Amino acid sequence: MYELHTTRQIEFADTDMAGIVHFSRFFVFMETAEHEFLTALGITVHFDYQGRRIGWPRVAASCQYRSPARLGDVLDLLVRVKRKGRSSLTWAITIRCGERLIAEGELSTICCALDGPTLEPIPIPPFLADQIEEAPKEVES
Amino acid sequence: MYELHTTRQIEFADTDMAGIVHFSRFFVFMETAEHEFLTALGITVHFDYQGRRIGWPRVAASCQYRSPARLGDVLDLLVRVKRKGRSSLTWAITIRCGERLIAEGELSTICCALDGPTLEPIPIPPFLADQIEEAPKEVES
Amino acid sequence: MYELHTTRQIEFADTDMAGIVHFSRFFVFMETAEHEFLTALGITVHFDYQGRRIGWPRVAASCQYRSPARLGDVLDLLVRVKRKGRSSLTWAITIRCGERLIAEGELSTICCALDGPTLEPIPIPPFLADQIEEAPKEVES
Amino acid sequence: MYELHTTRQIEFADTDMAGIVHFSRFFVFMETAEHEFLTALGITVHFDYQGRRIGWPRVAASCQYRSPARLGDVLDLLVRVKRKGRSSLTWAITIRCGERLIAEGELSTICCALDGPTLEPIPIPPFLADQIEEAPKEVES
Repeated sequence: MYELHTTRQIEFADTDMAGIVHFSRFFVFMETAEHEFLTALGITVHFDYQGRRIGWPRVAASCQYRSPARLGDVLDLLVRVKRKGRSSLTWAITIRCGERLIAEGELSTICCALDGPTLEPIPIPPFLADQIEEAPKEVES
Repeated sequence: MYELHTTRQIEFADTDMAGIVHFSRFFVFMETAEHEFLTALGITVHFDYQGRRIGWPRVAASCQYRSPARLGDVLDLLVRVKRKGRSSLTWAITIRCGERLIAEGELSTICCALDGPTLEPIPIPPFLADQIEEAPKEVES
Repeated sequence: MYELHTTRQIEFADTDMAGIVHFSRFFVFMETAEHEFLTALGITVHFDYQGRRIGWPRVAASCQYRSPARLGDVLDLLVRVKRKGRSSLTWAITIRCGERLIAEGELSTICCALDGPTLEPIPIPPFLADQIEEAPKEVES
Repeated sequence: MYELHTTRQIEFADTDMAGIVHFSRFFVFMETAEHEFLTALGITVHFDYQGRRIGWPRVAASCQYRSPARLGDVLDLLVRVKRKGRSSLTWAITIRCGERLIAEGELSTICCALDGPTLEPIPIPPFLADQIEEAPKEVES
């Protein structure tokens, strides 16, 4: 599996005084799309594996804003696996509203054991890694 | 101790498309004022006591909105102990901007051990209870 | 129409370090349920009527927390019209997760023209008022 | 002026169920630091100029997370002008907690008139542009 489509509708609390969705909210939208992908693989974002508590702390996040989103807009999110490393996953998320491109973002995450004194990177468990593949590169036309 | 004053300035992300602070944000403002009170007593909101992890889950919250707050407004918050029970604290918070009354709210909390399978109410530890008293009733004029 | 059912799933960003949904988020959940009710009547929460911009500022909000909600929980929200005044609507919202009662809240709103120098209460436009009725009282058993 | 220092303390509502500050909150922290810089220049983030309403929509935002922040941490934010264009400003924000590097981020913004049917880029007004200079490159040691 390398991509998943999902949708969400803009809520009043997503907006700011400029009348559009606050830019920080897109990171929540992207994260929830990522989590839906993980759910489709059979885990929740925090899960137990070999007696440890595992999660995916973010090491980087970015977003490019192409067009504003407004109250009531129904966003289409496409989340794809951009890079799969031994411990890391980089997600690329494209957000559209109908034909209109709204935003493009990335989340870089590391598979970590959360139950130690510090976050400890671990290899992605094989039962997950086996289900995840990198998305084919999109060809610019 | 029965009251504490604090201030905070409205940020862009506090606002919504109506151009004013979103009503849900006042609950965050009130909570942070409550936590500053607890900090003044020498604890953080989650703390260890007799080998257990203690916190203050909310059982009720309410707010009455008197006048909108806007970007850049500096709010004055007065947080007072309205009721002190064996395990419970009810906080009354009054929020002003200069002379203008912005909002009045309450947070009802229960002292609980957080580390069991369910939230377990416990008596407020004496070292805290001894420092907290109910605020005198405000006389309406 | 006097009630509407809706659902929403708890997201990671709804949670706090206590491992449960932050209490302020329930006000967003309630508001969005209210807005879905208004959408079912054919308006968005801000709408134009007789040349003015109309909205529903909150005058009060409250919530009683019965049981914590956690990541992935699917909440059932029932939003009902508790009181319909000339300019005001009070909404009662009950939130469950399966059989479990999570929270009960209220939002008190005033129909206002938003485009003047101050928020100006106006009667609820007849095309809306005619569609809204108070919910029958729930009988305690 | 090319940089400004500010601080903020982590609040309970900034945290998530991993026990650390949610990654989306850093974008709010960065934005507020940016706005404090603009305030120091004598404007608010939305301001009137030559009869138009001016603001700074974001075109891109990014953050690299170096170390988690937790409740009560007092963050030091250094906001610097990374690039000044005719209509654009790119801000670089470094966030520390004492000696510890927490996060490094950027916000790319465009000076726009907000009062038209679409966001319309305009040159940064001279009274502002004259006050803003690019920060010297930091030398890696």
